[in-house]
Amino acid sequence: MRLSKTFIKTLREAPKDETAKNGAYLIRAGYVHKEMAGVYDYLPLGLRVIDNIKAIIRDELNRIGCEELSLTTLQNPEPWEKTGRFDDQEVDIWFKTELTSGGVLGLAPTHEEPVTNLMKSYLSSYKDLPVAVYQFQTKFRNELRAKSGLMRGREFLMKDLYSFHTSEEDLDAFYTKVEDAYRRIFERAGIGGCTYETFASGGIFSKYSHEFQTMLPVGEDTIYYNNDKSVVLNKEVYNDEVLADLGASGETFEETTAAEVANIFKLKHKYSKPLGLNFIDENNKQQTVYMGCYGIGISRLMGVIAEKYADDKGLVWPDTVAPFQYHLIGIGEKGIAEAEKFYAGRENRVLYDDRDKRPGEKFADAELMGIPLRIVISDRTLEEGMAEITDRKTGKSWTIAISELFEK
Amino acid sequence: MRLSKTFIKTLREAPKDETAKNGAYLIRAGYVHKEMAGVYDYLPLGLRVIDNIKAIIRDELNRIGCEELSLTTLQNPEPWEKTGRFDDQEVDIWFKTELTSGGVLGLAPTHEEPVTNLMKSYLSSYKDLPVAVYQFQTKFRNELRAKSGLMRGREFLMKDLYSFHTSEEDLDAFYTKVEDAYRRIFERAGIGGCTYETFASGGIFSKYSHEFQTMLPVGEDTIYYNNDKSVVLNKEVYNDEVLADLGASGETFEETTAAEVANIFKLKHKYSKPLGLNFIDENNKQQTVYMGCYGIGISRLMGVIAEKYADDKGLVWPDTVAPFQYHLIGIGEKGIAEAEKFYAGRENRVLYDDRDKRPGEKFADAELMGIPLRIVISDRTLEEGMAEITDRKTGKSWTIAISELFEK
Repeated sequence: MRLSKTFIKTLREAPKDETAKNGAYLIRAGYVHKEMAGVYDYLPLGLRVIDNIKAIIRDELNRIGCEELSLTTLQNPEPWEKTGRFDDQEVDIWFKTELTSGGVLGLAPTHEEPVTNLMKSYLSSYKDLPVAVYQFQTKFRNELRAKSGLMRGREFLMKDLYSFHTSEEDLDAFYTKVEDAYRRIFERAGIGGCTYETFASGGIFSKYSHEFQTMLPVGEDTIYYNNDKSVVLNKEVYNDEVLADLGASGETFEETTAAEVANIFKLKHKYSKPLGLNFIDENNKQQTVYMGCYGIGISRLMGVIAEKYADDKGLVWPDTVAPFQYHLIGIGEKGIAEAEKFYAGRENRVLYDDRDKRPGEKFADAELMGIPLRIVISDRTLEEGMAEITDRKTGKSWTIAISELFEK
Repeated sequence: MRLSKTFIKTLREAPKDETAKNGAYLIRAGYVHKEMAGVYDYLPLGLRVIDNIKAIIRDELNRIGCEELSLTTLQNPEPWEKTGRFDDQEVDIWFKTELTSGGVLGLAPTHEEPVTNLMKSYLSSYKDLPVAVYQFQTKFRNELRAKSGLMRGREFLMKDLYSFHTSEEDLDAFYTKVEDAYRRIFERAGIGGCTYETFASGGIFSKYSHEFQTMLPVGEDTIYYNNDKSVVLNKEVYNDEVLADLGASGETFEETTAAEVANIFKLKHKYSKPLGLNFIDENNKQQTVYMGCYGIGISRLMGVIAEKYADDKGLVWPDTVAPFQYHLIGIGEKGIAEAEKFYAGRENRVLYDDRDKRPGEKFADAELMGIPLRIVISDRTLEEGMAEITDRKTGKSWTIAISELFEK
């Protein structure tokens, strides 16, 4: 992409009400635009990061046999009334609206009820199971406060996966597969080393659920971890009974803040029972379907990665989610001619700053935008047939022969 | 995709309230699921059709220099109040909702106001123009009645493109590029031969706008066309004055029904003026930005294609938008073994019916699902080293040597 051809510009300042580092940098670097607290537009660079995150997740979920679909935002109250969750006393983050033709609708904050209801048209026999479906879908949550940039949205992108099984054993086995897939996803997204599977409250149907928590100073959650971080607990379940349960009674735990990037949950019969999602088993007997649900906050993940790695100069993207791999700058007549040559045919991997601006301004923008490797080709470096590469993360620079660069 | 591995099934019946042919077939064939009138979930096959349509549009728009972004559903009233369009008397299809923290929000029925507002952060000089941005975004319209299947949605997917220019001439030149791109899009999507650019009312800022109308018995619009279909008009502008204007006074016009799949509009200063989207020109003078907007109904397009080509046996997809190219059926032990061999490595192009069902049922499902070419490999065809191919559209069958099939 040529910077001269895109409408986005880096901005000197973020809006005054944007107090979160991730939000401020993402706005200033031209990745997102803020509509209101917790509601962001994705500009071309931001959309590329989102698409990269989605591609990693899609790849890992397809690999374990999940199918992609897309459910709606507008929600008929009926299935939610059956589970008691349409009530604002029960779920206090609904956005609701009204049909001109009469009747209240909700904007989906999650999709357990509609997906359970939908499956009644498709699942009837044990032969139809197991099934696992996922979507990338915008969710709406009427948060009283939304001050953490992309880490807490009123309108945000989520990957939600739902699984359906004949037995608890089959649910357990699939749950383990998702745990593994999630570890691979966070590893590939560049936060594997600071993201831990965390015991959390399971509600009334399961003893525990699991969260994936990324350690982060501004994270909204508090977690406790033992010495080798093999046991990590959300504050809500950090007590003697649970520690005994996990065989970690004698150990010392440290407290830290973290951001929840995913949660997984054995729902068992929580939604399938009230909504009547049943199947006929091998003995011709009717049984209730076992369910699990597994979420990853996509826009939150983008916010967490931004927050985690940003330094005082701007964003720092892991190369797997970065919108481009190289930030190219040509300096001087020959440098620009050579940069143009390098750019040709690499438009999809190179962000080329071909604007009529001073090198200093281009360098500052490159640091703000956070593309992994900056390539500078200048008249001076060309004198020795070289280009200069700078790693955004470490700040280290080195030179490379132009011929070698072109072979990349 | 293996039919044995997907949760979708063909259904004997569509819901009773689904009176539109496109909606009924898309539900029965497992492409969509109906949540309520005008609100549909996309199941794996339906999502693939949507993705194919999006890929064609993205390709054509990127080619003319447009950039992709993604705007939000939740709408702050402020910019809409400046143009007078937040008023329900003015725009009668709003869904509105309320923030817990106070204040009314709207669900975007279109995005002229937010995109104009957003550009105020990025456009300030003639050097920043022209700009053209588009998105694939869910729109919400509180329709009193929604009875045309995917052709009229309360929640529906749209591609909307907005362009920004220094002058009317530059807007005109870009408008022509979009017209050409749209013709290519509809040609590639398989409805080029029955879709016509149609004069329609331009509102107060332009004499005409243009629609792309697909001739269709159940279309909700009425259009008039001359002998060679070189002049096509929406009923709303079919009068002597307009015919004179277009130099078509003496000609005979026929009336027919059609479905609007796209509309394009020279907005000029309609939104940029009240929202204050200005730029500084070459002479350092402040000017108002010229705008155009260009929409394509993505889910409607899917509905129109389904409606247009479906026959009494089911759906018939053009190969460019079909979710798969081949519907594979193996019959008999050797037939199935050979089908498995053909399927391996072609998972993304072949819908393989490997279910334990009678051939007759599989043939009926293949017709309902509408994949362009059915391939049958049976013990009988294998005796002569052949497979049978059937064109879904024409119903014609022919045989092909297995060796030749594998070379495809």
